[in-house]
Amino acid sequence: VIAVDAMGGDYAPEEIIKGAVAAVDRGHRVVLVGPRQEIDCTLDQIDARVPVVDAPDVIGMEESLSKTLLDRRSSLQVAADLVLRGRADAVVSCGNSAAIWTVARFRWGTQPGIDRAAFGGVLPTTHGGVFVLDIGANTSVKATNLVQFAVMGDVYMRVTRGLTTPRIALLSNGTEDSKGTRPVKEANEALRKLPDIQFVGNIEGNQVFEDIADVVVCDGFTGNILLKGGEGVAMEIFKLLKTELSKDLFTRLAASALVPAFARVKQLVDYEEYGGAPVLGVNGVMVNCHGRSRAKAVTNAVGLADRMARECIVDRISDALRHDAVEISRRRIRLARALHLRHE
Amino acid sequence: VIAVDAMGGDYAPEEIIKGAVAAVDRGHRVVLVGPRQEIDCTLDQIDARVPVVDAPDVIGMEESLSKTLLDRRSSLQVAADLVLRGRADAVVSCGNSAAIWTVARFRWGTQPGIDRAAFGGVLPTTHGGVFVLDIGANTSVKATNLVQFAVMGDVYMRVTRGLTTPRIALLSNGTEDSKGTRPVKEANEALRKLPDIQFVGNIEGNQVFEDIADVVVCDGFTGNILLKGGEGVAMEIFKLLKTELSKDLFTRLAASALVPAFARVKQLVDYEEYGGAPVLGVNGVMVNCHGRSRAKAVTNAVGLADRMARECIVDRISDALRHDAVEISRRRIRLARALHLRHE
Repeated sequence: VIAVDAMGGDYAPEEIIKGAVAAVDRGHRVVLVGPRQEIDCTLDQIDARVPVVDAPDVIGMEESLSKTLLDRRSSLQVAADLVLRGRADAVVSCGNSAAIWTVARFRWGTQPGIDRAAFGGVLPTTHGGVFVLDIGANTSVKATNLVQFAVMGDVYMRVTRGLTTPRIALLSNGTEDSKGTRPVKEANEALRKLPDIQFVGNIEGNQVFEDIADVVVCDGFTGNILLKGGEGVAMEIFKLLKTELSKDLFTRLAASALVPAFARVKQLVDYEEYGGAPVLGVNGVMVNCHGRSRAKAVTNAVGLADRMARECIVDRISDALRHDAVEISRRRIRLARALHLRHE
Repeated sequence: VIAVDAMGGDYAPEEIIKGAVAAVDRGHRVVLVGPRQEIDCTLDQIDARVPVVDAPDVIGMEESLSKTLLDRRSSLQVAADLVLRGRADAVVSCGNSAAIWTVARFRWGTQPGIDRAAFGGVLPTTHGGVFVLDIGANTSVKATNLVQFAVMGDVYMRVTRGLTTPRIALLSNGTEDSKGTRPVKEANEALRKLPDIQFVGNIEGNQVFEDIADVVVCDGFTGNILLKGGEGVAMEIFKLLKTELSKDLFTRLAASALVPAFARVKQLVDYEEYGGAPVLGVNGVMVNCHGRSRAKAVTNAVGLADRMARECIVDRISDALRHDAVEISRRRIRLARALHLRHE
């Protein structure tokens, strides 16, 4: 059962509810969480039936995180509590990602063996998308965090894409092992020694889009810059094309013939196709959709959450971490750091 | 007089020499530095006259940095020495940027008042480009470094673009002052207190392309990811467009009518238009062009170097730094850090 927060996002609740209804039609079991009357009213309008769990409050985009946690009757918290009480297996929300992070992190807790949970996200590419983590939760990290992100990304891609050995890369300012910040260099060394992971080394920003890696590991600050910067470039190019192609009647005419082709290109760089950003490393399955998500994105996110819950991703991450090699790598990094600091 | 390293870059020496000749035609005074015979031969072929300073050695792309420094007869070092001996005012090179950085940093030295020199670079945008620094020299920085980068970027934009008060922004993972790594947060606080700089606060990766800031300040790791990531997205979109537009005869026909429009878009995201990346904070003017630079890029870089030298950018940076406010901000950051560490 997937609990869908009906009140998060720019187009809540209508688009969220439509997305949930479409997910039910695809065979998923869904409960909608939010103010019962409002949701029932919308369901009546589109003549559909989905179970509803009442939650009177809504978390605003500007809500402080402490208030988010204190408000136990908000749709997001009620949804998270359903998972805690075993009445749901996962939560999907298009709300404020800081609130989602806070609730997952503090209501569910970080899972054993993980020092820091992470937000993951898919960067669209021509070969089906690259999974990047962390994309914003941790502004600064240690090498052990990066190693754990790599393990979580590995399990995530096995579970959601069915890859047998996903290729894992570290994002850096050069492909050589000697390039990067200190945590990146230490993580590179540690990942080279992990037997169960296919580590392909450091990659640079432009190589993210070449078919070199399935998972790109970085700290949340860098991940945020990579994603937002890429979004900026894409928007800039589309804006430029629009200006150039509508300059005179002749180009407008030729361009109008190409509208379907342009639409396909735009679709490929569209977040709606990609089902949302999971919080990994917490005791539960939480998927965050873009605030601008419409019904289709919500339906995809329910599918993703369902798959993660069915495949017991939390347990599988724990299993991967229990592997001796990860613990050894952790001790090795600590030792290397201690020696390094002493040396300084 | 601008010393042009004739031997750096993928198309050296022909394209470099052609670019230098074009710069002379535009009224710049240029000396070419490299193996005399080879250069004279090329000059004869295109029937042009430019003074040559002999330098028998060439620095390879894979040269170690210590070897780069030891080889005093390489074209890059001979060019740098011309500036030291007062026989040239600036150096332009399309060679390996690590070598250029090393020579500028260790042969010329970091200028007084600067703790770390930086590589700057222009990110193409629809409104004429944004100057980003650092783009690769310093993988990790302190807040004082970021403040100094801001001051250098401010002077650079005044000198090269004639802006009276360039808008300076810090790159971060959120626009709020509380967002970012610790150095970013500290630098934000310090920059708010500098009277001579128009600090517009933090900006996110996508906002770099909106007309919000003229200078974007970040550490070299993040700057590298921003530039390379953006390059990757642009290449990916052009690749996608090409695939989609050549799918059938009809789209190919319509697209062929739009070739000039596409060319204009590509030109706008083209590094050749932007004259090169300056090393700021060293005792001399050094401009690094992209390794793939052709004649036009070299000519533009000579123009840029000439302007920087004429306007005495090194002295103007020193003047800006001598301002009490910068020294006060430096002390303030140190104090804040000391208190913070004690608190921890």
